[in-house]
Amino acid sequence: MSDVKILLTEKEMPEKWYNIMADMPNLPKPPLHPATKQPVGPEDLSAIFPMELIKQEVTQERWIEIPDEVREIYRLWRPSPLCRARRLEKALDTPAKIYYKYEGASPAGSHKLNTAVPQAYFNKQEGINRLTTETGAGQWGVALSQACNFFGMECKVYMVKVSYDQKPYRRSMMQIYGSTVVASPSDETEAGRKVLAADPESPGSLGIAISEAVEVAAQRDDTNYALGSVLNHVMLHQTVIGLEAKEQMAKAGDYPDIVIACCGGGSNFSGMAFPFVYDKLVQGAKVRLIAAEPSSCPTLTRGQFAYDFGDVAGLTPLLYMYTLGSEFMPPSIHSGGLRYHGDSPLVSQLLHDGIIEATSLDQTSIFKGAILFARCEGVVPAPESSHAIQCAINEALAAKEAGEARTILFNLSGHGLLDLPSYDKYMAGKMEDYPLPEEILSSALKNLPKI
Amino acid sequence: MSDVKILLTEKEMPEKWYNIMADMPNLPKPPLHPATKQPVGPEDLSAIFPMELIKQEVTQERWIEIPDEVREIYRLWRPSPLCRARRLEKALDTPAKIYYKYEGASPAGSHKLNTAVPQAYFNKQEGINRLTTETGAGQWGVALSQACNFFGMECKVYMVKVSYDQKPYRRSMMQIYGSTVVASPSDETEAGRKVLAADPESPGSLGIAISEAVEVAAQRDDTNYALGSVLNHVMLHQTVIGLEAKEQMAKAGDYPDIVIACCGGGSNFSGMAFPFVYDKLVQGAKVRLIAAEPSSCPTLTRGQFAYDFGDVAGLTPLLYMYTLGSEFMPPSIHSGGLRYHGDSPLVSQLLHDGIIEATSLDQTSIFKGAILFARCEGVVPAPESSHAIQCAINEALAAKEAGEARTILFNLSGHGLLDLPSYDKYMAGKMEDYPLPEEILSSALKNLPKI
Repeated sequence: MSDVKILLTEKEMPEKWYNIMADMPNLPKPPLHPATKQPVGPEDLSAIFPMELIKQEVTQERWIEIPDEVREIYRLWRPSPLCRARRLEKALDTPAKIYYKYEGASPAGSHKLNTAVPQAYFNKQEGINRLTTETGAGQWGVALSQACNFFGMECKVYMVKVSYDQKPYRRSMMQIYGSTVVASPSDETEAGRKVLAADPESPGSLGIAISEAVEVAAQRDDTNYALGSVLNHVMLHQTVIGLEAKEQMAKAGDYPDIVIACCGGGSNFSGMAFPFVYDKLVQGAKVRLIAAEPSSCPTLTRGQFAYDFGDVAGLTPLLYMYTLGSEFMPPSIHSGGLRYHGDSPLVSQLLHDGIIEATSLDQTSIFKGAILFARCEGVVPAPESSHAIQCAINEALAAKEAGEARTILFNLSGHGLLDLPSYDKYMAGKMEDYPLPEEILSSALKNLPKI
Repeated sequence: MSDVKILLTEKEMPEKWYNIMADMPNLPKPPLHPATKQPVGPEDLSAIFPMELIKQEVTQERWIEIPDEVREIYRLWRPSPLCRARRLEKALDTPAKIYYKYEGASPAGSHKLNTAVPQAYFNKQEGINRLTTETGAGQWGVALSQACNFFGMECKVYMVKVSYDQKPYRRSMMQIYGSTVVASPSDETEAGRKVLAADPESPGSLGIAISEAVEVAAQRDDTNYALGSVLNHVMLHQTVIGLEAKEQMAKAGDYPDIVIACCGGGSNFSGMAFPFVYDKLVQGAKVRLIAAEPSSCPTLTRGQFAYDFGDVAGLTPLLYMYTLGSEFMPPSIHSGGLRYHGDSPLVSQLLHDGIIEATSLDQTSIFKGAILFARCEGVVPAPESSHAIQCAINEALAAKEAGEARTILFNLSGHGLLDLPSYDKYMAGKMEDYPLPEEILSSALKNLPKI
């Protein structure tokens, strides 16, 4: 019996993050100030971000040292395991070898903690004792709550009201770690009060919650804001995933033909794929890199490559990225973490330049894959991560069709233990797909800001 | 930085379970037939258990080989990690070293899978394609569902109705793994129909659910019954925990002065402690072994050592064990897995002979310990496991008081991600303690069966 799990010791954990901006043939266009439409400078960001993260946002140094204090916390769950999914291979009767990296064993239950910890740390280093953020379903809010708790910082989370009411489990976790969780819109901020005045019953949205969190951070000197995806420094921190996976594949005496991860704002995909993009760009490795997204929110596969706002209200800098338009309201699919109109500028640029690929999957197909995976490998996956699973299954079946023993690696970014009602709905045959109609897409894209 | 996690490779996983009956100074008295009051023979059990498990129930061989097929499944999550809780040590400002073994990383979320897998396997080997069982909150039902799924067997779970309605998350998990889950009392069995005739609104109980599961197993040749605790073969299978922990402590260059685990029916405590009891009995090791139980259901600390039924209806064999009386109805504490009137006869005998110790803890104290642990170490623990945590905290503080650098090892038997509403209740200050009044205890003990 050869091993199911390929493990690294804590001493083998990466000491540096990989910064893909050192190696991209074309860098993304710079973010623009929402009012002046001029490139944003460090001084524009310093009201809500610490200088070290602002530097990471723009630097082209290839390797960025991971501070000891961050590695010390990482060691609670890292290096994360890489597993060979032999039982899934057998169920698919495929000649493909399927490996997955498992990020769900982090105490936050997902990969989000990889960036929450350094974000809290670099803020703390610069005298900040309090962070604000927004959260939808709660994965990011849980991760930032844990990270702040580890460094003795306060954390205030604006949680979209409909999730606050309907998804109490992740709210409980944030409170266990000592965070204050507020239903958004709240009457604590001007942005929130404005929304409530217009509609006291507003269910809230990520866009509103971002506005509340940013408003509070901008007003108080001891308070900054933290974002769980999209920005370059977030992508950077997540590269620990792929760096470990490369070492583990080497230990297994293997190298992937195909690397897959789900993609919403891009942090999970970047984390797994960027270290392999390095192999492809710098060392000429032949490896396909696939971002898997929902067909109901097909940013990379059907969006436009253009400047757009990160939020609904148009308060954030304009980012050059694939976008469905900041007014696009994604349907209520169960993969809350992938319901975002835009995407990381780094991921977008790589896709535009043909270095990575993207594919989209229907909600019912990803739950089918999720249940097959759970029955074969044990772990109940998060709906978001199940996009990567179903994509890997499709590739394994394609390998079977071609009669080729391809090696497939995907990132299982989180467990689905707090998403079980979605599984109930699927098993009861009550889940629907929401393919995006062309007319809704073109109408949302009509209103992209003019630059 | 020395390692937080002490890992074993899959090749270092134990190849044999440890059978404590080889080394006990006094074996437990034999189980008696509920009708004849004569010792139960293999033929009495063969209607619902496979012969191999019946053999394991009585053998005095010290080492029992773990079949390759079982080890192959164990490898999905075993060997489980042993961690040094440095951040907890620091928070307690104690000279004690605190280690914990983490069983919550199993795909079932608890140690229960360690016995579910071999139970399914040995049944399958003897031509059984279907298992029935009962479950309360659902930990055991989830584990057996996974195990049956791994071996392509059907699984039918009678889930106590009040939990079926109020705790849908673990029911969803059982269904994901392909089990049929029925609210008990059901109209599918004579036992269930009888209860429903008397009270159509009955919320059910473990005792009723056991009767239903056993009735179905006894009637059908292709169907057996599986139990998740109390019996000797269950304790045997769980010893992988302690055997691994001993190897890991040796790798850390350490040996525990104190070993702690929570105790309901005894499987989690046995799994961790029995391999250390071997050291104590056979090799003269000086190690304290502490079973931690709820003060509201204080079987080991306040029960009577006597023959009693395993269920409420008096259908199971009589076991010689510590008991609060089979009529005792434990209050609705949040540690559903520890709400049992009796205990493993093996654990009971060791306690009676002074080889192990027991202690009881209040519900509010264990949640206090759980939150401290989560904030220090990240993992949100199950309420059951939190009895071991709080006991370890108490021992670490006692070591501080004594100024001694004692080494403490406890078993973190499961995560609490599906128990978050209990945390909400605690954090809202609405949780009560239920110390057991003397008059209720003595009244429950009055009706022990006369042998």
